[in-house]
Amino acid sequence: MASSLDALSALCKRRGFIYHSSEIYGGMPGFWDYGPLGCELKQNVKQAWWQFTVRGREDVAGLDATIIMHPKIWKASGHLDTFADPMTMCKQCKKLMRADQIDDIRAELGKKAAAVNPAFALSCPHCGGEMTEPKPFNLMFKTVVGPIDDPSNVAYLRPETAQAIFAQFQNVTATSRMAVPYGIAQMGKSFRNEVTPRNYTFRSREFEQMELEFFIRPDEAVEILHGHVVTLADNPDLNGPVQDDWGWEVWHKYWVEQRKKFLNAVGLPTEHFVEYWQKPDELAHYARACVDIEYDFPFGRQELEGIAARSDFDLSQHQKWSGESQMVFDDPLKQAAKKMDDAARAAFVEKTQKAWAERAAATGKDAVAAVAAAEKFCQNLFDGKYVPHVIEPSAGVDRLMLALLCEAYEEQKLTDEKGKEDIRTVLHFSPKVAPVKVAIFPLIKKDPDQDRIARDIFRKLQKKVNCQWDVSGAIGRRYRRQDEAGTPWCITVDAQTVADGTFTVRERDSMEQKRMTYGEFLAMMYDALEF
Amino acid sequence: MASSLDALSALCKRRGFIYHSSEIYGGMPGFWDYGPLGCELKQNVKQAWWQFTVRGREDVAGLDATIIMHPKIWKASGHLDTFADPMTMCKQCKKLMRADQIDDIRAELGKKAAAVNPAFALSCPHCGGEMTEPKPFNLMFKTVVGPIDDPSNVAYLRPETAQAIFAQFQNVTATSRMAVPYGIAQMGKSFRNEVTPRNYTFRSREFEQMELEFFIRPDEAVEILHGHVVTLADNPDLNGPVQDDWGWEVWHKYWVEQRKKFLNAVGLPTEHFVEYWQKPDELAHYARACVDIEYDFPFGRQELEGIAARSDFDLSQHQKWSGESQMVFDDPLKQAAKKMDDAARAAFVEKTQKAWAERAAATGKDAVAAVAAAEKFCQNLFDGKYVPHVIEPSAGVDRLMLALLCEAYEEQKLTDEKGKEDIRTVLHFSPKVAPVKVAIFPLIKKDPDQDRIARDIFRKLQKKVNCQWDVSGAIGRRYRRQDEAGTPWCITVDAQTVADGTFTVRERDSMEQKRMTYGEFLAMMYDALEF
Repeated sequence: MASSLDALSALCKRRGFIYHSSEIYGGMPGFWDYGPLGCELKQNVKQAWWQFTVRGREDVAGLDATIIMHPKIWKASGHLDTFADPMTMCKQCKKLMRADQIDDIRAELGKKAAAVNPAFALSCPHCGGEMTEPKPFNLMFKTVVGPIDDPSNVAYLRPETAQAIFAQFQNVTATSRMAVPYGIAQMGKSFRNEVTPRNYTFRSREFEQMELEFFIRPDEAVEILHGHVVTLADNPDLNGPVQDDWGWEVWHKYWVEQRKKFLNAVGLPTEHFVEYWQKPDELAHYARACVDIEYDFPFGRQELEGIAARSDFDLSQHQKWSGESQMVFDDPLKQAAKKMDDAARAAFVEKTQKAWAERAAATGKDAVAAVAAAEKFCQNLFDGKYVPHVIEPSAGVDRLMLALLCEAYEEQKLTDEKGKEDIRTVLHFSPKVAPVKVAIFPLIKKDPDQDRIARDIFRKLQKKVNCQWDVSGAIGRRYRRQDEAGTPWCITVDAQTVADGTFTVRERDSMEQKRMTYGEFLAMMYDALEF
Repeated sequence: MASSLDALSALCKRRGFIYHSSEIYGGMPGFWDYGPLGCELKQNVKQAWWQFTVRGREDVAGLDATIIMHPKIWKASGHLDTFADPMTMCKQCKKLMRADQIDDIRAELGKKAAAVNPAFALSCPHCGGEMTEPKPFNLMFKTVVGPIDDPSNVAYLRPETAQAIFAQFQNVTATSRMAVPYGIAQMGKSFRNEVTPRNYTFRSREFEQMELEFFIRPDEAVEILHGHVVTLADNPDLNGPVQDDWGWEVWHKYWVEQRKKFLNAVGLPTEHFVEYWQKPDELAHYARACVDIEYDFPFGRQELEGIAARSDFDLSQHQKWSGESQMVFDDPLKQAAKKMDDAARAAFVEKTQKAWAERAAATGKDAVAAVAAAEKFCQNLFDGKYVPHVIEPSAGVDRLMLALLCEAYEEQKLTDEKGKEDIRTVLHFSPKVAPVKVAIFPLIKKDPDQDRIARDIFRKLQKKVNCQWDVSGAIGRRYRRQDEAGTPWCITVDAQTVADGTFTVRERDSMEQKRMTYGEFLAMMYDALEF
């Protein structure tokens, strides 16, 4: 595991994983480019997520929406009004800072100055000058669509991919032949105009997300359908198939477990991350639960991804702002409600009203309005209609890549038989995400038979996975080169290959060598790559 | 093949290929979202390109750079100064138009009006009013990076992916262990603030590109190395391995052929597109040749992709604007130059000077400056140094997808044995790009054995390719549903499967059914999917 970013980032630059964006022009803070190995790693991480979340399931459909969308989407989502950092400026030195980071800046820079001048403890950590009142600075990048530079044409680069899923919920529902409970997944770039991007690629201004919105029935609908709602107290089996009688709490926990399985599969063992359940006062007002999966980066423990139970907030907001119904029609629900008699319905309404009134009272909201809303909600349920609730597992591609790089990095001290010490730098990537799967070498490059056979193997494997060909230097040096790139297997073609067709497969982590046939290698490789 | 966009776009909406962006908010002109089938198609097109262009070769490295880059990049590339459309406004009705499209608008709308009022033939096609002088409108989307809204912080959304490749050329060269001739490939979003986006997804404001910059030696370096330069007149073999003595002309033609092979492989037969060689007066001033591959869309013949020989223009521009050398060191060239005696070098310089002076004279440039530049260029070559030239095959993901959709679309008239006519709508996608590869059905869904075996096949195949499970309706209806999605194979599990494990594979285009074992099917499928 990487203990500091310095050695890791040096390797990332030297081996073509990560470069500063626009480096020859002095760079752009908060923007990073992926080089030849980095972009393979990124594609593999995204493909793994897609396989695990979409293609490998029956209940998730994909979406690929635009980055620039209708600005009202950000009004509905709340980003336009509240996605902001408080900014303050020093009236004296004119430096702009985030008001919530002044103490950190002071801790970093201001200690000496504060000892000299006590004013620094109260004002600008740079010069001690007076600061302006903090003002909100919206983190969305703005642009103008069309030739007329007018406020009515202002649009934003999406700060998250999730909202497009909500905006297209009805289209996908109508065309995917799926019904709630089901999810919509999207991967793609998002942009946040961070005031202080930092920690290498962790907090960037341009980054990529992998988000799933998994739509579920409100618990009340589950109750009508099944006469009960399974909660965590019922100790449901989260490793088997999903169940129709699960309540939101179970669905949420199910997705936490799914995400942990995914992280394990791509190379992060459970004992290396922390599952942090947000406390009630930390939750967004609409959220019922939120779990952060945190990883111990060299710069501290930070959120890798989050799994939130967001109630019906998002679709309800879009229903309100677009004027288009975001309700679904759930025929099994309608059929179940039909079987209820009037008394059962009345009892159900009353129970729901009571629960909603209590929740409203607890959160300081209008209980009378809640009772009226509950009545309307129940009548819709009896007609088989509701706005779905949602569980949102949201992951960042770049920060997962960074965690995988940190996790994979090792400087191994080796001692050879003569007692000589040596450092082997190795990236212990899971084969599933490793940028190069196989490197192929002829042992003696000038041996035409070895060269021909190695080339033949290379060309065949190249059609299946990303491979590298290397003939330069001693075999030990070639192994080390691949260790730094995180290549799980090196195939060496030697004199015996010419005789019997078997070759040496050197495994990266154990450094063990085994003789295999092409067929044996292929079976072993496919097995390691499959989810 | 689709004869009009109407039926095709209706299918694309209905089956979840393509939606309007932000549809519930009234849409955003020029922005399109890909639904569940569309995003699978898109991923497959991109993966096919990457496999063909990067992973399947030894001489191309990948890159994944940011969309927002240093603004000077667009100064160097020329986009800041010249990537603009001429705009004009009617002083009377205030309508804004592209000056170069007024005749088209008039042709569309103005005929009747022009008959009534001859003034329409000279001025505003909408109202006959006087138009303003055309002014350039830059097509790059602008934004501001960081919290200070100041001209010095203005940045642009990239209008093409190519420039990031040039800006990172030295980093990739230093870290990829590749040497010229070699290429760098990138896929990703680009943005152009088109005044009049149109033709469905063909001309969008947000789109995705797949660009390769293949860097080659200047012909003069090839001559020093090999004593000759292979040109098209030498009739080189473009289907075999690439050769070190090829000049730019051969490399350019080689990439035209490669691109055609790729288009064939993903489902566009050569006879369905046109290879248009730009005439000398159509070429950009730095370009030596440019081929447009054009496709007959229902809205007319349009460029699908371009393959340009761009000389050393791009890297030279970045060298000039960044102040960072974009030369490479080519040891074999230096060694070859060492073997030339003084007379040979002098003759080489003289020959080069003469050629450069002639070219300058022909293009109206300063011949004296050209002679001096040629001298310097030759001295650098003798030291093994030069700015590489580049061949650029540049393709649009969205327009290729649209071409593949148009090409695949068919409404087939079928007549059954009773003479009843029926229409079968089918998308004849190549299996390589088809969004769903296999659909799996139990013939009788209530038969527990058929269901169990079908599920088992489904779960195994799902780990390998994108599959669909369908149990609803008669088998014929399930076939038709898959035909519309372009699924090449449908597997039906029936009573015989329960007995002997074989199942029916129904092929989409021929509608023929064959019995196969799982192993036979897998081998057939992999064979069809591999490049």
